Amino acid sequence: MSLTALARPRSSGLSLRDTLSPSPPRLQLETIVKALILAGGSGTRFWPASRRSSPKQLLRLVGESSLLQRTVRRLAPEIGPQDCWISTTSSLRRAVRDQLPELPPERFLAEPAGRNTLPAIAWSVSMLPSVARDDVIVVLPSDHWVADETAFRRSLDEAAAAARRDEVVVTLGVRPRHPETGYGYLELAAPPAVGGGAQRVRRFVEKPDLETARRFLADGRYLWNAGIFLFRGATLLRLLERVRPDVAVALAELGEASPEELAAGYRQLRAESIDAGLMERLDDILTLPLDCGWSDLGSWAALAEVLAGDAVGNRRLGDLVAVEAGGNVVYSDRGTVALLGVDGLVVVRSGDAVLVMPKERAQDVRLVVQSLEGGGRVELL
Amino acid sequence: MSLTALARPRSSGLSLRDTLSPSPPRLQLETIVKALILAGGSGTRFWPASRRSSPKQLLRLVGESSLLQRTVRRLAPEIGPQDCWISTTSSLRRAVRDQLPELPPERFLAEPAGRNTLPAIAWSVSMLPSVARDDVIVVLPSDHWVADETAFRRSLDEAAAAARRDEVVVTLGVRPRHPETGYGYLELAAPPAVGGGAQRVRRFVEKPDLETARRFLADGRYLWNAGIFLFRGATLLRLLERVRPDVAVALAELGEASPEELAAGYRQLRAESIDAGLMERLDDILTLPLDCGWSDLGSWAALAEVLAGDAVGNRRLGDLVAVEAGGNVVYSDRGTVALLGVDGLVVVRSGDAVLVMPKERAQDVRLVVQSLEGGGRVELL
Repeated sequence: MSLTALARPRSSGLSLRDTLSPSPPRLQLETIVKALILAGGSGTRFWPASRRSSPKQLLRLVGESSLLQRTVRRLAPEIGPQDCWISTTSSLRRAVRDQLPELPPERFLAEPAGRNTLPAIAWSVSMLPSVARDDVIVVLPSDHWVADETAFRRSLDEAAAAARRDEVVVTLGVRPRHPETGYGYLELAAPPAVGGGAQRVRRFVEKPDLETARRFLADGRYLWNAGIFLFRGATLLRLLERVRPDVAVALAELGEASPEELAAGYRQLRAESIDAGLMERLDDILTLPLDCGWSDLGSWAALAEVLAGDAVGNRRLGDLVAVEAGGNVVYSDRGTVALLGVDGLVVVRSGDAVLVMPKERAQDVRLVVQSLEGGGRVELL
Repeated sequence: MSLTALARPRSSGLSLRDTLSPSPPRLQLETIVKALILAGGSGTRFWPASRRSSPKQLLRLVGESSLLQRTVRRLAPEIGPQDCWISTTSSLRRAVRDQLPELPPERFLAEPAGRNTLPAIAWSVSMLPSVARDDVIVVLPSDHWVADETAFRRSLDEAAAAARRDEVVVTLGVRPRHPETGYGYLELAAPPAVGGGAQRVRRFVEKPDLETARRFLADGRYLWNAGIFLFRGATLLRLLERVRPDVAVALAELGEASPEELAAGYRQLRAESIDAGLMERLDDILTLPLDCGWSDLGSWAALAEVLAGDAVGNRRLGDLVAVEAGGNVVYSDRGTVALLGVDGLVVVRSGDAVLVMPKERAQDVRLVVQSLEGGGRVELL
């Protein structure tokens, strides 16, 4: 990463917490940034394309490469494979490795079991070589979408500079485009400064209801929480010791454990997100507004934003024949999907399953998965 | 077929045209009834299950056997394979034969090209051995559904008796169950007689609009035209000579043609239905009301009537998982179809294609097929 930072001297009198790292001028930093990519997730919202053995990050949802491959290669101009680590789970390790032949085997850190993002991140950081832990680490989900990759890297650059200089956690916050109820929000301590720059986060906000989301959108101080964090590894471990000594102690024990002890001990960790388990408990977090066409691709309906479209609003990956049918989302891994006289549907054909639902039910795919689980249909999970 | 007929002497004074062949007493007839099954049709309403190479009659739409196989085997208790002929086209002959190994090869009469039912029936009858032509022949479509097969055979029996005795064409007319706009109707000269029996047909009526269909349903004198005809072969040929001498002459020429001349000459025949080309021009047709749970299975929506159902009105063939989804029709030749929050849809998975449409658009599947034709997608036709 061609790292840059703000040249302005700290004596300028500006509060660093309110308007850090405005746009250029930027200077080269001397440290190297590392990336820790979280690829251990398993979800249900992309069933039937996603299954237990091939979760969303491994799917080619938007074209030739999987979301995981896109995440790694998006960084490559500045953070190459030699600076990437992949956090995953032991059950997915093989499939994740197969998708990233450019990374050496030791870069895949496999949790013995999925325990959500706090254990995954904390343990992975503790497993990095100490020289790497001393650098700024950007932690990224592996299943998101970025339209403008140059703008994305520029923001990472700027956030990395702030994280290094101020020894704090820096998050990336996306300027809301609509009153989304599927995301958490970051409330800024003050309205975003003209010209950007990292600002202090007042609080993390859980997924709001629609009315609240509309208020957030109008307010201007609320950003979508993109789940991207930057910090020096040493900073994170120090913050854990202070705020979550229980986790710090557990990590220290796991660090000296045999493989068998690790497998058993890791399962004892409480599953919790880094948002709830750590970030919301810190009083000093910065966020940098991100404007790069970001999406978490949180559902089949959200996928529509990034798929090819036709004149009547159908979005598709795969062969579609639409007759008097518009505004549908179609994903097909083979063959042809024909729609006649339907609007606003999601139609997915993947492997041995077909799914049909209205777009507005796209967040409820888990109900289908639960029904399959309840019926013992493990071959479909 | 254990053929029976009315024993009542013609001198009874009753008009034979109004109340022929009432219910038993019935007597054994001495002739054997033959069946001519029409299996040359090609339609689009069951796409994507039906394709040019496997039209509806060859599909296993309702279970293990195809509709053609069911049609033949439904007759078997009384009209066995030794008395069946199959009219098809040369392009389907192989597939049709493969489904009916119990019939000897000479029983498959292959038109050089499809020319609708008048040429198909007239030519096929002319090709029967003369001894068979002397018998009563029942002409049946090969793609219909009959729920009560015993009642069906009883009606055939009764109609055959009338056809033999009176040297006329006898049709089977289904008592309407709803104001169907997809069928032609037969108007009786008088309301159906109590106790049944063949009655004179006043006219054939083309598919009505909904208002007219409602009037027909309330009137009581209108029956659905089931497309099933009975006549002595010699009677049909005599009627053709009288009413359609052009067709009679063409048949005589084809009867003396070489295979090459047949292929060329047959294509010269005008494509027309036997309803429009002959039946509507006859002034002496009888019909026997049929009450056997008949359906022409005219669309994916109509198929719902004969598929297994669940408590919320989903009808299916194949594996279905429905969550908050009811009143849908699902047909799947493999894998699983999952529906979430949708109602009143038809969802078909067959081979390389998936089709989704509302049930009320089921008559419009041809629009999809036309779109594929227009796009040169012959591999899907």
